This record gives sequence, structure tokens and C-alpha cells, in this order.
Amino acid sequence: MLIFRVVLVEPLYSGNVGSVARVMKNFGFEELVLLNPCELDMPAQMMSVHAYDIIENARIEFTLNDALKGSNVFIGMTGLPGKTDNKHFRIPAYSPRQLKHKLEGKNGIVSLVFGREDAGLSNEELEMCDIIVNIPTSPVYPSMNLSHAVSVVLYELSNIEGGEKYLADHFDIELLYEHIYEVLDDIEYKEHKEDKTKLMLRRILGRAELTAREVQTLRGILRRIQWKLRTGEYGKSD
Amino acid sequence: MLIFRVVLVEPLYSGNVGSVARVMKNFGFEELVLLNPCELDMPAQMMSVHAYDIIENARIEFTLNDALKGSNVFIGMTGLPGKTDNKHFRIPAYSPRQLKHKLEGKNGIVSLVFGREDAGLSNEELEMCDIIVNIPTSPVYPSMNLSHAVSVVLYELSNIEGGEKYLADHFDIELLYEHIYEVLDDIEYKEHKEDKTKLMLRRILGRAELTAREVQTLRGILRRIQWKLRTGEYGKSD
Repeated sequence: MLIFRVVLVEPLYSGNVGSVARVMKNFGFEELVLLNPCELDMPAQMMSVHAYDIIENARIEFTLNDALKGSNVFIGMTGLPGKTDNKHFRIPAYSPRQLKHKLEGKNGIVSLVFGREDAGLSNEELEMCDIIVNIPTSPVYPSMNLSHAVSVVLYELSNIEGGEKYLADHFDIELLYEHIYEVLDDIEYKEHKEDKTKLMLRRILGRAELTAREVQTLRGILRRIQWKLRTGEYGKSD
Repeated sequence: MLIFRVVLVEPLYSGNVGSVARVMKNFGFEELVLLNPCELDMPAQMMSVHAYDIIENARIEFTLNDALKGSNVFIGMTGLPGKTDNKHFRIPAYSPRQLKHKLEGKNGIVSLVFGREDAGLSNEELEMCDIIVNIPTSPVYPSMNLSHAVSVVLYELSNIEGGEKYLADHFDIELLYEHIYEVLDDIEYKEHKEDKTKLMLRRILGRAELTAREVQTLRGILRRIQWKLRTGEYGKSD
């Protein structure tokens, strides 16, 4: 079974938080996490209409790490695929429909991370996400209202069928990444390529939606590589 | 090729009209028709952000007939499928995805008709529509914000591929319906069933998305039936 959390990063307008709560309830979603939100004043209540309970029950956090704690996969939403210098941040981005297909049959907690109304998610925040999603919009005016973007993503995911394949915990995957970086050090991977390669590996493994068992198998391979590097005749750098 | 018009029936809040304009431009739609709208004051401009041109170019009408004039197919949106006494009004309703599949490969002008924020479309207004669409929502809270509903429908239709199959003009189809009603009179169809049957026939033919040629063929059959009723030995009621 899949459980979804909507994570709003530093929402600026309380009316938007209310609108998001309303469309969450429309599509049967319940868990809202607010990272450093604006004051949740009257417009939040007005725009949520009959979904104010979602705001009352929202979890409020002050770091993205805390906001994402406990979920297996982090999905970062961006309105601007591949528009930065470092394309690995955003490409390849999935459409909401592709995201749905990727998550079908899975089991775990999924955080859907939406950025600020004006500036979206920062590169650092996107880097923390396993999968990047972009809603295909017109190049003439790609910037969507926050609650419209949430509407489209939740509409797609509202009838998803979860399954038995239990997704690895995101923090176990973090340990895998750390392990990979260790190996990159061990093999003296070229420094000027290192950052891009690390991010590319995160994106590849993020898209692969590893199960807990697969993570353990990969770490076994890494341990074996390290053992061989240290003891065998190959891989000695001096 | 398909051209879409968004028709808002008596929108109550100008901010919603602005939000609808914004998401239209996000998904590459241009033609907005407003039927008896509220005053299009500051919130319309604020919420449309960079899409105010869509509001400036909107056509304003005072009857639904005028609002729908010139389009081949009328699609009525409802949040409440089959909740009225007369289920033929609303059932079967298509999902936005099913609507997309039905319109693929077609050629013509399609009006997407959205009702009032509080009361939706009236039964009379739904009766004028060829196809009814309902966004699948949670029974706990099915009532969506107007611009959220528009977001979901336009998201689905934004990458539709039109084609060559030219849709019959809605008013030619109206003439076909009139002709069918004439035949129902000719055969002395039972009065207490007549209204429901008429509406059912409209729904069936609406879903069939008739081409101009098909309408002419059907009318030929009706003329032939009427001729036979009047001249032949069968069908004489006295």
C-alpha cells in the first residue's frame, strides 16, 4: 500500500495552503506537512472550506530533513526542468502520469514536495529528492499556481494501485549513497567530475526505486569491491 | 484539429476567473467565454498574473445558447454524477481521461462548460450538453474549487491529438433530435416515458460524436420511417 504526504516548502500565502488542503480532501489525501509556513490565518480557513481539519492536523517542521522524516521516497516538483546549469538536478523529470506508473504496485510512504509560490524548490532541496516531477506546461507561461499544480498531481495519483513491493527507506538509500561516495574516493575518481557523477548516480538510483533487499545487495557489492581494492592485487593505487 | 473553449457559467468570484485564465495559459488554451460573470475586478487581474490577456479577450454572453454558439460539441462538467432524480441527465458521466480518448482524432470546436462555484450547472444546462464529465473525487468531499476542476480537465486535454474526423455542428444535431422527437410523436410513443427516453437518446447520440455525414444519414432513415408510416400499411394507428 502507498501512503502519500503533501509537503509544502515555505508557502507564502495562507490562502494557497487552504486551497491545497481542499483539493487533498477532494482526492482522498490526508497527510499535510508544512515547512516554515506563513501564518495560517483567515484565508487558509476560507479556502480550505470543508477541509480545515487537514490544516489543523498538519505537521509543522523547520528543516526539510525533519519534514521528510519517515517517508521512503521524496518526489520533488519543479516547474523548470533542465533550466539550470547543472542539468542533473532536474533531468530527466517525470510527468505526473509517469510518476504514477513508476509507483504502481509499490508499498511505502511517499512525500510529494512542492516549493515556494515564487521560487519553487532550491537546487539543494531538489538534490535531496529521489525523483523529479514536472507538469508539462506551455513554454509561453509555464509557471502554475501552487494549488493547481497540487490538483494535477493528486488527480493523477488518486486512483493509484499500491502493492507489495516495499520501497527502501530513504535514509538506508542515503547510507548506500555514502557508501558509493566512499568507493569513488577509494578508486580516486577524478575530482572535477565527482559532483556531477554523484548526482547522476543519485538520480539513477532514485528512479530505480530500490527495495530494502536491493539496497542491501548493492551495499554487499560495494563492500566486496572495497575488500578487493584493499587486499587484492588490482586496484592498489600505489 | 481541435479547438477548445472554456465556458464559465455565472462565475461568482472574480479571483476564480483570474485563476482559470492563468491555468488556461499554463496549458496553452486561449478562448474564454463568460456567461453573466461577476464584476471582473482586481482579484481577476491579480490571480491571472501573466494571463490577464485571456480575460481581456474573453467573450461575454448573457444566454447559454449564445455562449455555446459556433462550437460543435458541448461538454458539461458536473461534480455530482447521478445524484438527481433523473439520472439520464448525468449518467453515464465520463472522466476527463475518457473524454480525452473520445475526442482524439477529431476535428472541431469543443466547449468545456463549467458551472457556478456554489451550484454547478442546472439540470436544464446539463440537458443542453452532449457529453457529461465528472472528475472522480472522494465521496467524503467531492466539491472541487472551480479553478482546480479546470486545471485537471485542461491538464488532460493539453496534449490531445486532433485529427480529420470533422464533428457535426451541434445545431445540426439539434435538428436531428427534433426529427427524432417528431418520429416519437408519429409512433405515439408513451407520454409518461417520453421525456426520459428523449434525454436518453440525446445522451447516446452525444456520446457517439456524430460526424456531419452521419447526421445526414440518420435523418435520411428518419425521413424514410416517416414516409413509410404515412403511406405504408404498417404503422397506421387508426
